[in-house]
Amino acid sequence: MPPFSETVARLGRPDEAAAGATAAHLDRLTKPRGSLGRLEAVAVQLAGIAGESPPPVPEPGVVAVFAGDHGVLAEGVSPWPAEVTAQMVANFCAGGAAINVLARHAGAGVVVVDVGVASELDAADGLVRAKARPGTANLAEEPAMTPEETTTALGVGADMAADLVLKGARCLVTGDMGIGSTTPSAALIAAFTGHAAPAVTGRGTGIGDDEWARKVRVVERGLARTGAFGAVPGDDPLAVLASLGGLEIAALAGFIVGGAAARVPVLVDGVIAVAAAVVAEALAPGCTAYCVAGHRSSEPGATVGLDHLGLLPLLDLELRLGEGTGACLALPVLQAAARIVREMATFDSAGVSDKT
Amino acid sequence: MPPFSETVARLGRPDEAAAGATAAHLDRLTKPRGSLGRLEAVAVQLAGIAGESPPPVPEPGVVAVFAGDHGVLAEGVSPWPAEVTAQMVANFCAGGAAINVLARHAGAGVVVVDVGVASELDAADGLVRAKARPGTANLAEEPAMTPEETTTALGVGADMAADLVLKGARCLVTGDMGIGSTTPSAALIAAFTGHAAPAVTGRGTGIGDDEWARKVRVVERGLARTGAFGAVPGDDPLAVLASLGGLEIAALAGFIVGGAAARVPVLVDGVIAVAAAVVAEALAPGCTAYCVAGHRSSEPGATVGLDHLGLLPLLDLELRLGEGTGACLALPVLQAAARIVREMATFDSAGVSDKT
Repeated sequence: MPPFSETVARLGRPDEAAAGATAAHLDRLTKPRGSLGRLEAVAVQLAGIAGESPPPVPEPGVVAVFAGDHGVLAEGVSPWPAEVTAQMVANFCAGGAAINVLARHAGAGVVVVDVGVASELDAADGLVRAKARPGTANLAEEPAMTPEETTTALGVGADMAADLVLKGARCLVTGDMGIGSTTPSAALIAAFTGHAAPAVTGRGTGIGDDEWARKVRVVERGLARTGAFGAVPGDDPLAVLASLGGLEIAALAGFIVGGAAARVPVLVDGVIAVAAAVVAEALAPGCTAYCVAGHRSSEPGATVGLDHLGLLPLLDLELRLGEGTGACLALPVLQAAARIVREMATFDSAGVSDKT
Repeated sequence: MPPFSETVARLGRPDEAAAGATAAHLDRLTKPRGSLGRLEAVAVQLAGIAGESPPPVPEPGVVAVFAGDHGVLAEGVSPWPAEVTAQMVANFCAGGAAINVLARHAGAGVVVVDVGVASELDAADGLVRAKARPGTANLAEEPAMTPEETTTALGVGADMAADLVLKGARCLVTGDMGIGSTTPSAALIAAFTGHAAPAVTGRGTGIGDDEWARKVRVVERGLARTGAFGAVPGDDPLAVLASLGGLEIAALAGFIVGGAAARVPVLVDGVIAVAAAVVAEALAPGCTAYCVAGHRSSEPGATVGLDHLGLLPLLDLELRLGEGTGACLALPVLQAAARIVREMATFDSAGVSDKT
């Protein structure tokens, strides 16, 4: 596989001619103009991404769930023990987790990528072993990863994107697993958007007021140590990612850039994926044009990150689970947008009178 | 088929034991408690409706699209000619409309019920001919329907619900077609909720300021003639429906009550279906417990009606097409809720540690 920098260099702009052709075709279909609302805007985006009108139906084949552990768990930011990351990876491989059910429901499988689980994992069906490091260091105290580990994790994600597209994926769906992952996500979103820690730090899987205040202080310590507060244009985004990130977040950022470079839409899940998308845009400006936000996580950092990127999620169902669950629920909507363009009759073909 | 009054008499309450069993089971699944947000609330509702835990997956088989014409079109409330209703029925039967594409995408077919199209329609695959009257009278001037025609239309919807459930449907999806239908919908929502005409009258398929002001006056004339302004508890809801309604709206109200009486969830589409649900609740108090709102139409009356019923839509994608399109897009979410309960592993079965 090529180094990550080559993936970034391949990133192009969406095709305006294809987007325009789909927009014009939508106005000939047997419905009042614009009456399919956001479905029409998504269809136009899909055509621009693929460079084809009508756009192909975005079939992902599988949801890629990137898993990693977080040294910051030592600060008591989550009520869940670290071993749950590995236990959940086993649950994913056995087909019993929420993402398995929702991916199956959307006609997709699940592949789990161990890019940074702390423990050694046995080989299993659906598990890709690509560990860049066994869990991050504690971001409150020291850089979470070295620059080399960060580049490796970015490459794991970009390679997975390229591999899935090679196997026929016409869409990528982001998934994630890692106990403690909302803390680095909050820190990255704060660093790249300039928002203060309390505005981006949430309750994760469910913590009380005291634990939340502690989590905010942990994020603030990471930001202070990094010296990054929304000043990223002048900073080195890779260094910020290394300092505050997670291995699965870095891999997801690479995955997003990889999908954009391959001209396939990337359906982005909750706050972990949004943090990765914020990083991806900093590393490869323009890649957000290839992203569709699936779901608005109830984590506050998700909304801050989405606003920063100019993305409006398709769904808002108060999910706060991650794994790719919100993106999977949005996948049928994304696909419906393409099918509308491909399958609906026009006023002419159906013999329906237009409005006066 | 039994008369509509017998359908109303069969209406029971959701099963609290089944709902409670699903709620308890959701807390044993491998995810933080409550982290699937509204999916969990929907799953509990589905269990209560079916009286089974886990609830069955809500498969509708078909979307029922009720079609009717509106005499109020003589007032210039829509830029579309009346013949488009019949043309669109032909488009539905041929498979080319938005609802065909979205139903197919959700694994369902489309059946069209002519309960009130103005012209005679030839037999066609997927068309049920059950005309209660060839289009309504002009509601601005006189009652839209007689009480007998209204009862007939209610029965057409209730019978269709019973028939679909008999054929195996575990969910009903409301669809509608009728040029001019947002005007009677606005009038009914105003009459049953006590809101003034400007608060419930929208732009329908797309009209300018002058046309909108004219449409508001038409709604006001209908309300003044009917003498109904939110005083429905003391009124006769059937008389209000007859005075202001549409044939397809009456049939949809019967369809909703029929689904509730048969203990299947009814997935409600946009403003036409919401008007029907408001009527259904007045005719058969309690039937809203069996309804799930699929989508928030951009018509203002939809939000007024949904608030009146205490329903929060699953989706908000700025659609304003009707036909059942918003409900169809929400169907995968409804089904996902049931599948989560049926298919996810528990902490015990998957060997995942619970939080500390």
